[in-house]
Amino acid sequence: MSRTIAVIGGDARYLELIRQLQLMSDTTIILVGFDKLEQGFTGLKQVEFNELELNTLDSIILPITGTDLEGNVDTVFSDQKIKLTKEWFHTLEKSTKVFTGITNDYLVEATKAARISLVPLLDRDDVAIYNSIPTAEGAIMMAIEHTDYTIHSSRVIVTGFGRVGQTVANRFAALGAKVSVSANNIKELARITEMGLTAIPIDKLHEHTDKCDILINTVPALVVNEKAIQHLPPNAIIIDLASKPGGTDFDYAKKRGIQAILTGSLPSIVAPKTAGKILADVIKQILLDEGSLS
Amino acid sequence: MSRTIAVIGGDARYLELIRQLQLMSDTTIILVGFDKLEQGFTGLKQVEFNELELNTLDSIILPITGTDLEGNVDTVFSDQKIKLTKEWFHTLEKSTKVFTGITNDYLVEATKAARISLVPLLDRDDVAIYNSIPTAEGAIMMAIEHTDYTIHSSRVIVTGFGRVGQTVANRFAALGAKVSVSANNIKELARITEMGLTAIPIDKLHEHTDKCDILINTVPALVVNEKAIQHLPPNAIIIDLASKPGGTDFDYAKKRGIQAILTGSLPSIVAPKTAGKILADVIKQILLDEGSLS
Repeated sequence: MSRTIAVIGGDARYLELIRQLQLMSDTTIILVGFDKLEQGFTGLKQVEFNELELNTLDSIILPITGTDLEGNVDTVFSDQKIKLTKEWFHTLEKSTKVFTGITNDYLVEATKAARISLVPLLDRDDVAIYNSIPTAEGAIMMAIEHTDYTIHSSRVIVTGFGRVGQTVANRFAALGAKVSVSANNIKELARITEMGLTAIPIDKLHEHTDKCDILINTVPALVVNEKAIQHLPPNAIIIDLASKPGGTDFDYAKKRGIQAILTGSLPSIVAPKTAGKILADVIKQILLDEGSLS
Repeated sequence: MSRTIAVIGGDARYLELIRQLQLMSDTTIILVGFDKLEQGFTGLKQVEFNELELNTLDSIILPITGTDLEGNVDTVFSDQKIKLTKEWFHTLEKSTKVFTGITNDYLVEATKAARISLVPLLDRDDVAIYNSIPTAEGAIMMAIEHTDYTIHSSRVIVTGFGRVGQTVANRFAALGAKVSVSANNIKELARITEMGLTAIPIDKLHEHTDKCDILINTVPALVVNEKAIQHLPPNAIIIDLASKPGGTDFDYAKKRGIQAILTGSLPSIVAPKTAGKILADVIKQILLDEGSLS
């Protein structure tokens, strides 16, 4: 079975993603929005957005960011303006699979109306867990860069014990930090204790921040609030890994003179190649599973 | 027993070192060469080099770098030119202890001729092992910063299994890297294997570099030579932690387009506060042991 995949836009991660997809047999890859890329891909078709023959596409890969709320695609390696209108989705074959990193109301509605299947990759547990590795390494890099003490022996509090929080807690503990984790359910608190770390119920966080050098937030809600920040020592640092706008009262941290960083997506910054491979591995798996079913 | 300590020059590490020494009871601290420091120390005497009353000094702390071969002291926080002549050492009391980071022929001869006891702190096993922690964290920071893949799952070779090599191997393994260590005696090779890492006899290094993403040298001799570099994959990186000039054939690495970094002393860069505390703890220990003997 041969397949045709169109990659429409994407950042540095997608260079490795495309490289990995090239290794699949019987696969034609068409690139849109990579025209400004200095080191091009050999043997791949690059076309203008309007030249895409939509009825030939088995899969479409959108950037990690998907589209904005009007359907515009962010193209890092192109000046082309690409807009995926609701009509555009209607002209796709019903069997086309659309991959995106994250999704939003526009994409969900547009694909639903056109009866096209949408796969938001970053929602998947496997992708989120694999991505948590470069995220944790990015947090490590920042902690080393932005403090004048070692991670080793530092008192670290991680807020949240989800897919990212677990990895971050593991890695900082492995580097010799004294790690506490703040979480809000008894299962998580028990697991934190089992792992040899200190468990802090999230509503008691502010009682522990006076003994904290590095506070790492992974919760996309305001947990690092005024009360929590108030007791931090002056040389402490807050590293907020949650998506915008983070979970930190940045204004209050600034007022207190506490260094606080909202990191944004770290995998694309610290390890675009690994991050691209993570996405490629999952996309390949989905396509191969599908192939074997049909 | 009261004591007087003169700190003559020093870098960012010495700010924490001085802060720690201030906590000792019955201790007078005199600073020379910190006049350009913006945030000064309260309650400490700052004097010009020529104003030092040498016969009152129990200890003198020189910078990590000690002196050059003419006795000149590098003062980071001052424009003063400070030169410790051989005559200067003769005017010290015979009971004065002189601490330095590293030593050289000049310092050894000058103190020997004056019968003054010299303590080169970085020669001590405890200081070297404690310092290897910020060194390893610096190597981690560089590996994350200068590659587009994660440390996790990377193939890492550490050359040397001394005080620094052991720490580096431990930390990279803790981050999920596949770590091999190249060493040259059977005791080390056995220990490397016991730790679950791959042992490589140093003369076989070149047979393994084709499967290496991150090559970290800790040996102050040319072990990362042309033969070893020749087989490295193009996206590999060499991080050389050995003192100048390192243990890498940098010219050949450049010729092959392999990224190679001679890091210099990392503790002062990534964790001056921790590095200062390490020195202070050892100096305090030596002074207290001495106090209890007299």
